[in-house]
Amino acid sequence: MLELKTYPAHVLRAFSARLLAEAGLPPGDADLAADVLLAADLRGIDSHGVARLRGYLDALRSGRVNPNPELRVVRETLTTATVDADNGLGLVVGPRANEIAMAKAVDTGSGWVAVRNSNHFGIAGYYVLQALERDLIGWAMTNSSALVTPLFGVGRMLGTNPLAIAFPGLDEPPIVIDLATSAVAFGKIEIARRRGLPIPEGWAVDAGGQPTTEPQAVYDGGALLPVGSTRELGGHKGYALAMMVDVLSSVLSGANWGPFAPAFAIEQSPPGSVGAGIGHFFGALRIDGFIDPEEFKRQVDHLVRTFRATPAAPGTGGPLVPGDPEREAEAVRNREGIPLIPPVAADLEALAAETGVPLA
Amino acid sequence: MLELKTYPAHVLRAFSARLLAEAGLPPGDADLAADVLLAADLRGIDSHGVARLRGYLDALRSGRVNPNPELRVVRETLTTATVDADNGLGLVVGPRANEIAMAKAVDTGSGWVAVRNSNHFGIAGYYVLQALERDLIGWAMTNSSALVTPLFGVGRMLGTNPLAIAFPGLDEPPIVIDLATSAVAFGKIEIARRRGLPIPEGWAVDAGGQPTTEPQAVYDGGALLPVGSTRELGGHKGYALAMMVDVLSSVLSGANWGPFAPAFAIEQSPPGSVGAGIGHFFGALRIDGFIDPEEFKRQVDHLVRTFRATPAAPGTGGPLVPGDPEREAEAVRNREGIPLIPPVAADLEALAAETGVPLA
Repeated sequence: MLELKTYPAHVLRAFSARLLAEAGLPPGDADLAADVLLAADLRGIDSHGVARLRGYLDALRSGRVNPNPELRVVRETLTTATVDADNGLGLVVGPRANEIAMAKAVDTGSGWVAVRNSNHFGIAGYYVLQALERDLIGWAMTNSSALVTPLFGVGRMLGTNPLAIAFPGLDEPPIVIDLATSAVAFGKIEIARRRGLPIPEGWAVDAGGQPTTEPQAVYDGGALLPVGSTRELGGHKGYALAMMVDVLSSVLSGANWGPFAPAFAIEQSPPGSVGAGIGHFFGALRIDGFIDPEEFKRQVDHLVRTFRATPAAPGTGGPLVPGDPEREAEAVRNREGIPLIPPVAADLEALAAETGVPLA
Repeated sequence: MLELKTYPAHVLRAFSARLLAEAGLPPGDADLAADVLLAADLRGIDSHGVARLRGYLDALRSGRVNPNPELRVVRETLTTATVDADNGLGLVVGPRANEIAMAKAVDTGSGWVAVRNSNHFGIAGYYVLQALERDLIGWAMTNSSALVTPLFGVGRMLGTNPLAIAFPGLDEPPIVIDLATSAVAFGKIEIARRRGLPIPEGWAVDAGGQPTTEPQAVYDGGALLPVGSTRELGGHKGYALAMMVDVLSSVLSGANWGPFAPAFAIEQSPPGSVGAGIGHFFGALRIDGFIDPEEFKRQVDHLVRTFRATPAAPGTGGPLVPGDPEREAEAVRNREGIPLIPPVAADLEALAAETGVPLA
């Protein structure tokens, strides 16, 4: 069993913001980026939070990412835009591009923004929660470096390409959908490898494209499977969804799609370039462009309660509503702090020692 | 082995159009509805084509569906609208609502239309192919009568809620994504039952919510699983996608969502009503609102070729591009006719005998 070390959220947020500022981000941007990172840790999506802080810092310090990007709208209609993010940090340029989509929605009913020349933007869920605060239905997608094989293929050709969307309730909490289009997160392979356990069939293939239950095989040139896993169980659906996210985020914006998406850590370079950086896609819809918002939220409440009240399958606690686990994690972690696994805690302590910035 | 009887597409189209007109549809609408039906048969999605003709006719003849609906835009912004379909045939009102979304996209860059008080609209893919003809990226979704259980639940709570989107290529054919959010189509359960074969684990649960490999158990109160099948393989993702389609199609429009969606055949009535009919959601994006359309299509070509050239996993023919199988079916069936399984052929021959309308 791993022993977890727990840190208050405000400590991790202040630490991240200060280090990001020292790596060159303007202070307001550093605070924003730290907020996006912490949203992941608070919501229990540990792989996308402070575990990545060193990666972001390295990218800024080495000049691979621009700490002072100037966002440029390169094409625009009343309701759509493409933004060139000037190779900025996704954690900073993502929220700004999302603002453009939301502003267009407020003005015209809907807004859609494709982003190119960006870098990893944290959790997709962050962006749709921002939209909820303005009573909008928000969408967010991004591509990412290739880890997933197309159904019937060999090799890493698609990112885990997440898709998020959220719907507000009236008295009930919102429905918050935030899912990767792979069968499983790469972090689950890592955990199995560390524990010396096999992985279930349907998660991954080896370097030859054969199904594998050996986590090491995924590291040795293997790949994750798309959700649905096999032809029989609908793996072509997960593959198609990953391609949808890729085209909207990266072909529509002029970023690098599929196997050309640059890696988060630069060590594994992709096989060339077909665009600029990675891409995102943000959308926003005004609810009152379709229906009275209070009526909408009342029906969302009814739907949420109907699904929560559905009888439980044997051996389960019954159906959840998308967003429930993350919201519960957030409540606990806001109260009790954020538990970090030893390698991540050690990495942050090392960053504190290297920089003299206290982690407390 | 089933012996298939093959009919030329034009024969089935003319037969369908004439019977729909005799059931009360204005001639232009009958032609349109027949076109939508035949699109399913041509593309190999046999469950949504003429196999349903009698169901549509019964609904029209019994007065359950309005043959002369007046579409009413009940709410509207520059870029969004909600349409009340006046209990019309989905095959007729779907294309009209989709026109509204496409017209808004042409005017403003994007258009989004939610539809309530409708009925089954055929294949979602039809609508996004219409958008392709205008150089738009089209989206289509619909809810449908409940057949799918939420992960960890017992009972039918969600439709197979499909989602379609398409992207045009330049020299390559388009990417056409059209997928149900269930692990498998109900038709596959039917085929297994008819052949006396078990179904794979991950397709369905029985009336008690236990995983089952017995097709009859699905008929006896069981339910399909969402894509991803189990918690371990990502069944929560398919469940969330089905809920997304339901909320956009039916909560946003004011239709019946989840278990309240009326059944295609009225015999199995849902447990009440929370809105009007079933709901659809159509969207359209102008490509030149984001990027030069020729550049977009050139990159789609490159992407399509890259995925087609991906090495094949052992025992497979290599990755397909979404839309390939349906386009190939369409080419073959346009040339050689549409093969119908004996019960469907017999049903059409019976319709011909009952009505005196020749099936030739």
